[in-house]
Amino acid sequence: MISIIEEKKLIEQFESIVGAEYMLTHDEEAKHKYAHDETEDYVFMPDVVLKPANTEEVSQILKICNAHHIPVTPRGGGTGLSGGALPVKKGVVISMERFNKILNIDELNLQACVEPGVITEIFQEAVKEKGLFYPPDPSSRGTCFLGGNLGENAGGPKAVKYGVTRDYVLNLEVVLPTGEIIHTGANVLKNSTGYNLTQLMIGSEGTLGIITKIYFKLRPYPRKDVILCASFRSSEEACEAISKIYMAGVTPSGMEFVDRDSIEKTKKYLAEVLHTPVNMEIGEEVQAQLIIELDGNDEEVLMKEAETIVEVLDNYGSGEVLFADSKQQKDELWKLRRNVSPAVNSYSLTKSEDVVVPRGNLPALVTDIKEIGKEYGFNSVCYGHAGDGNLHINIMKENISDEDWNGKVNEGIGKIFQRVVELGGTLSGEHGIGIAKRPYMSMAVSEVNLNLMRGIKKVFDPNGILNPDKIF
Amino acid sequence: MISIIEEKKLIEQFESIVGAEYMLTHDEEAKHKYAHDETEDYVFMPDVVLKPANTEEVSQILKICNAHHIPVTPRGGGTGLSGGALPVKKGVVISMERFNKILNIDELNLQACVEPGVITEIFQEAVKEKGLFYPPDPSSRGTCFLGGNLGENAGGPKAVKYGVTRDYVLNLEVVLPTGEIIHTGANVLKNSTGYNLTQLMIGSEGTLGIITKIYFKLRPYPRKDVILCASFRSSEEACEAISKIYMAGVTPSGMEFVDRDSIEKTKKYLAEVLHTPVNMEIGEEVQAQLIIELDGNDEEVLMKEAETIVEVLDNYGSGEVLFADSKQQKDELWKLRRNVSPAVNSYSLTKSEDVVVPRGNLPALVTDIKEIGKEYGFNSVCYGHAGDGNLHINIMKENISDEDWNGKVNEGIGKIFQRVVELGGTLSGEHGIGIAKRPYMSMAVSEVNLNLMRGIKKVFDPNGILNPDKIF
Repeated sequence: MISIIEEKKLIEQFESIVGAEYMLTHDEEAKHKYAHDETEDYVFMPDVVLKPANTEEVSQILKICNAHHIPVTPRGGGTGLSGGALPVKKGVVISMERFNKILNIDELNLQACVEPGVITEIFQEAVKEKGLFYPPDPSSRGTCFLGGNLGENAGGPKAVKYGVTRDYVLNLEVVLPTGEIIHTGANVLKNSTGYNLTQLMIGSEGTLGIITKIYFKLRPYPRKDVILCASFRSSEEACEAISKIYMAGVTPSGMEFVDRDSIEKTKKYLAEVLHTPVNMEIGEEVQAQLIIELDGNDEEVLMKEAETIVEVLDNYGSGEVLFADSKQQKDELWKLRRNVSPAVNSYSLTKSEDVVVPRGNLPALVTDIKEIGKEYGFNSVCYGHAGDGNLHINIMKENISDEDWNGKVNEGIGKIFQRVVELGGTLSGEHGIGIAKRPYMSMAVSEVNLNLMRGIKKVFDPNGILNPDKIF
Repeated sequence: MISIIEEKKLIEQFESIVGAEYMLTHDEEAKHKYAHDETEDYVFMPDVVLKPANTEEVSQILKICNAHHIPVTPRGGGTGLSGGALPVKKGVVISMERFNKILNIDELNLQACVEPGVITEIFQEAVKEKGLFYPPDPSSRGTCFLGGNLGENAGGPKAVKYGVTRDYVLNLEVVLPTGEIIHTGANVLKNSTGYNLTQLMIGSEGTLGIITKIYFKLRPYPRKDVILCASFRSSEEACEAISKIYMAGVTPSGMEFVDRDSIEKTKKYLAEVLHTPVNMEIGEEVQAQLIIELDGNDEEVLMKEAETIVEVLDNYGSGEVLFADSKQQKDELWKLRRNVSPAVNSYSLTKSEDVVVPRGNLPALVTDIKEIGKEYGFNSVCYGHAGDGNLHINIMKENISDEDWNGKVNEGIGKIFQRVVELGGTLSGEHGIGIAKRPYMSMAVSEVNLNLMRGIKKVFDPNGILNPDKIF
């Protein structure tokens, strides 16, 4: 426990590091922004919010917090879906919002060096202007930070062809909980020089260190793309078709699944809330759709691949396949897909799951989720990056009582996770564990593994100050 | 220290686990095979070699060794180039040679489950038969084990487009030094469920656990390829051309660099030692070549890409570009490239370096290596996966005295590493640190990082029994 006098001293020290302008202590309204993310209705007020400008300031703050055992929660754009950036033990929130510079785009080596507070979409656009491609593409790309993407190992629709955030990170500058500043690797494409601290940091949800600089690798931007939208009479058929497309030798750059509920709620949301309706009719018999994107440098090749896909889809009697080749049509389809989560959230409080199974087991999972929903009394919409076997399940509160919402529904979620693990899958594909999935961690990860993780945590953070009570 | 009586008891226990047939104790000749790999002329005799048949046996052996603090060195195909599989502290070598089964190739999910003692090429061929592709392709693929490839995070020529071993591993069964058996992850394409123990294990050179099962992801096999071979008047020009090709928007599936010495020595070796000469003339002015492979599913696209490359190469006045499209021509080029290392080794004892820098810094590095060689009195051949910035440097002993070989030459290697680090690179791209590069580790990795690695090692291996004295 820290005395009031000591606390006053600490606040003075923090102020001398970041400046009064970049510190929030008593302004509860301003602090509230840092008390929640996009996970359910969670709110945890921090004692202090600090907005350091550079690595040295982060290091100084951590040295003080480490010496006084003050909990520190690093925060990016606040778009998390598992509560990873919430200060559950109060203390200090370090907001990385001033780390917003793209330091270098190296066209010779196809690399970039960026600060972690850069918004993902801004980075994507900046490299695209130079003909380069940064494929990770979370739905929240317009507001999320790259640092948060690394913390949770974000994915997005292009992961199915191009991999997730982890696949684009070469090296990191990190401030350890002790305040020490390290580089985790080197700016090279291959590295077998000791344990891979870079990969250990990614997906560790801000529990091992605070990332202050990211060295990315990039790709040449693919010059062409086409999008197909296919309708199915059942979710199971749609999920079956996915594996068949891969087995036909085509690797789409996007393979998104949306069930009927997702589509209807999103269309309504776009029309009534965002006032940007999409012009897309779906037949009465349609229960699910796949949005399939192909990209590359040669239009003819894409057309051949699209034909192969259409042949596969013919076996599913799913009716006409919509072929989007104008920019407007493509934008509308992606707008629909990207807005599923906000749409469902605007309609009801939700619990958002992010399970992942081997692709071929998706049809079984989709069936079981609806069964479990019936048994435990909840409705859900299912959508997501089905090409990776990564399914988002938004469970809606609607008229469920608070008691059931925190009891019976959680039991049902436990049942879903149990089924996911039986199907060879795991709890989170790209949203992380944070606090929301933490109670279920032992269903997917053995006690021996958890102890290894706890041991690693202790090596990096002997006093347990950094983002405490997350993951395990 | 273990008494002789105790030792006898231990040997009996080992025998009861694996059976007399699969244990070597006093047969020095048979044990000698397990005393060396392909690193210089290193020899370290183990006390005992055990050849367990399954995970349970590995676990039992490790429990005993852990209880008695006996050093254990896991061993794959013995093709390592950094001494990672050598029992430098004697004790037990666990040879994984009986873990040689491909357990499952899952065409629905494009996954495979294999034991670590499967030879890389056998696995490549088995999945290819099903139209699938496992891209990591070390030169030693005909004899190396997949487990060893994971230990060192092996790469090979296709890494430049398809990534390294680490990019194909979804999940592992591992026996920890304590004998506990874990799975490090799940068989899924995306995973944000706790710290990534799978990636931590890969490249850890057998110091954190013994891998007993590997779950790979695979790709559809590309149906077409072409190979170009371009000649240059200097190594620097060749290295410059590499970056220019990427900047032109082409991503080759192979981009190999060989200097004149490599080519000449390998041609001689193929003709005189292997009696399979290749029919390839090189002009007098040629100082280096690039072997450039393009792959994909569409021949026309490959031809267009090849044309783009030829246009880039035109700026280098490198003379004619050889275009290999027959199987025989392609095989000859790859045979030449794959045999550089054995050729140089047959000609002289060598020290083999495996440095990696950002691609654009290769020209500077190549120049400096030759300068350093002059200063410290050694000749070297340079070749390797230049598309990744990964350069192999084989330093030849030739007439150098033993004293200089172990003194002055090592100083020169230190100088090369120093230059590599200055150029943003690091010590090893795919061979690992083992014992050969260990003395140089602090040049590339800070003491803080090394302490994190030591801490992680301690979490996994509290008694320090597994592959001791490697890496750091």
